[in-house]
Amino acid sequence: MAVNLVAPEAEKLLRVNGIRLATASAGIKKPGRHDVVLFEMVEGTQTAAVYTQNAFCAAPVILAKDHQSSSPSRFLLINSGNANAGTGEQGLLAAKACCEAVADIAAVNASTVLPFSTGVIGQPLPVDKIVAVLPQAFDSLAADNWLAAARGIMTTDTLPKAQSTQVNIDGQLITITGISKGSGMIRPDMATMLAYIATDAAIEKPVLQDILNSAMAESFNRITVDGDTSTNDACVLMATGKAGNATVSDLNTVDGQNLLKAITDICRFLAQAIVRDGEGATKFITINVEQGQTAEECRQVAYTIAHSPLVKTALFASDPNWGRILAAVGRSGITDFDLSGVTIHIGDVCIVASGQPAEDYTEKKGQQVMSESEVIISVSLGRGEAVDQVWTCDFSYDYVKINAEYRT
Amino acid sequence: MAVNLVAPEAEKLLRVNGIRLATASAGIKKPGRHDVVLFEMVEGTQTAAVYTQNAFCAAPVILAKDHQSSSPSRFLLINSGNANAGTGEQGLLAAKACCEAVADIAAVNASTVLPFSTGVIGQPLPVDKIVAVLPQAFDSLAADNWLAAARGIMTTDTLPKAQSTQVNIDGQLITITGISKGSGMIRPDMATMLAYIATDAAIEKPVLQDILNSAMAESFNRITVDGDTSTNDACVLMATGKAGNATVSDLNTVDGQNLLKAITDICRFLAQAIVRDGEGATKFITINVEQGQTAEECRQVAYTIAHSPLVKTALFASDPNWGRILAAVGRSGITDFDLSGVTIHIGDVCIVASGQPAEDYTEKKGQQVMSESEVIISVSLGRGEAVDQVWTCDFSYDYVKINAEYRT
Repeated sequence: MAVNLVAPEAEKLLRVNGIRLATASAGIKKPGRHDVVLFEMVEGTQTAAVYTQNAFCAAPVILAKDHQSSSPSRFLLINSGNANAGTGEQGLLAAKACCEAVADIAAVNASTVLPFSTGVIGQPLPVDKIVAVLPQAFDSLAADNWLAAARGIMTTDTLPKAQSTQVNIDGQLITITGISKGSGMIRPDMATMLAYIATDAAIEKPVLQDILNSAMAESFNRITVDGDTSTNDACVLMATGKAGNATVSDLNTVDGQNLLKAITDICRFLAQAIVRDGEGATKFITINVEQGQTAEECRQVAYTIAHSPLVKTALFASDPNWGRILAAVGRSGITDFDLSGVTIHIGDVCIVASGQPAEDYTEKKGQQVMSESEVIISVSLGRGEAVDQVWTCDFSYDYVKINAEYRT
Repeated sequence: MAVNLVAPEAEKLLRVNGIRLATASAGIKKPGRHDVVLFEMVEGTQTAAVYTQNAFCAAPVILAKDHQSSSPSRFLLINSGNANAGTGEQGLLAAKACCEAVADIAAVNASTVLPFSTGVIGQPLPVDKIVAVLPQAFDSLAADNWLAAARGIMTTDTLPKAQSTQVNIDGQLITITGISKGSGMIRPDMATMLAYIATDAAIEKPVLQDILNSAMAESFNRITVDGDTSTNDACVLMATGKAGNATVSDLNTVDGQNLLKAITDICRFLAQAIVRDGEGATKFITINVEQGQTAEECRQVAYTIAHSPLVKTALFASDPNWGRILAAVGRSGITDFDLSGVTIHIGDVCIVASGQPAEDYTEKKGQQVMSESEVIISVSLGRGEAVDQVWTCDFSYDYVKINAEYRT
């Protein structure tokens, strides 16, 4: 029941020169489901990555950080169905064993393999099952397996999430394709969210990391489903350098900015897709906060609204109970907050003007705009020029159902 | 479906000498329901009060603060069904009109009347309906109407909440009786929560405020249902001075401490009753955090767990998905957090010891302790001696149902 999101068409997902992918069925949680995904990157590929900020990092995150900072990466090994988190020393050994198995087959160093896991926390990773399907995965590596990979990393997602674009850089048509997963436990600064974006452009490693950081700030770090963050989140950006462009070594050039914009667009699509497929989501909500003193306080207000279960259930019910939005703004903790400057709109319907209930507001207008599948809540704080934006979804019976029955 | 909570028996609610109460049916939201409550305090009564910290205060809160600080209070006028919040200048005029109507009948100054409202936000208060039933309310003022008053202030509460106790002060048996309401939009620093506690003890006004502040910190400010705070919360403590004790003028005496303990016990009962009747609650959860560097960081961890929809839905499902508790601890934002000192128990079942999964943990043990109606989650941070405690409830289908359909 994703909101205005459909499964991507395989033929619209463009191959990225230098990247091959494969999936396999290890039977980690559900028999028959493709739950192992292998990425192969051509030699010379640069990578940038961002990881969860949860103090309890899952074992694969600890290892991926270590490997990615010490060696050029050649493989990503991702499994769904088991997060290998809260598994202590054994979990670290399990993640290592998986990396070594990939390395053995490919005859590379294990530190060139980055491991990722998503799924249930606190259960031992079935290493043997994963290792057993690796030869088959290697045999089926191909450049056009993006949709299968997008499916392979899903957990409670109802749809695969993937997108491609192309942009001209240094006279070369370069390609960017990315996939993502995650539908609950999503909030800023990474969540149970995995995303892998690859381009065939040649980009210097520090510039690649800058691009990823900047793109994250405008995409994955602006979404929230339930305010929870996971132990396993990761986003990897790969640049194979096979497109033939002169290596981009400065972000502040026309090429650098065009590349940044194209990659940010892909990330924003993938991030919004996660919210559109939020657990139990029936509506996609954009929260704009403007006229703040700082972007931080705009975000603070936006997230207080976005995390309010009362606002989210009212959105689910298409109930213009705008008092709940007003209450959330009021408790967001902004200092020296003069309410007389506050204006709040739902869509184009003004509900609060200059801190007072809008005179021409009617329940009918409110209901109409709340019943749309895409709702925009705009708050103007009237105390500065900063703006920020957050995307979230509503809170339905199905959210509870999905999360109460996740492991059964 | 309140958790281990039953309606109080009328005969167990003790009269407080100097307090009379009445209820009336003004038809504010539901015809026939008693939705107006009037408290009459004998002349000489001292009052202390705490109000919502939401920047958007409802009109009655603004007026009650003003009245209570400027004059000795003689009446409380409370209505349910309409919060008179988000109603701007008109709302303030409406609250004033209600106070004046009470004052006219009683031949007192309007500033001796404190107004309180709870219910839907953003709709005009039906002043005429309320004023029309005031004569009848005055006629039925009686000392034994506590249970009716507890019912009269209810909104989505399924049960009235009230409790009495007695304590010996200066050789006199003094009585304390209190009522509370609130079942959603509850979180620390007041929520959509109203509480009125009265004693016949003689207590100096500054001591009374100290007692209320201290009791609040150990009760109403330690509960959370959904992390939302309301525009309307208030808690009033009244001391009529009719018990005949020598006026308590110092909290740091045996009498002062005995009084504090008795009032705190009543507040804790009333606060926990709100959580036990939390919207859709099926379990009562106590979260203990110990060995923190400061009580603040203990609270931070406790509230991160208590507000996690993933933890709350797992509790609803009796699913020992303890990884969600671990993830919440990990993202609680404590600085320089060494996980190797962390131990987590659910009931007496250890799930994490010294930052590692507990070796003797089994799914069966976890399930058993999670399926109780009272669940205690204990987190030891291993970095200090501070402790704190928070009470919450689980998150069920009914929470969504109640809040999606509140106004229909």
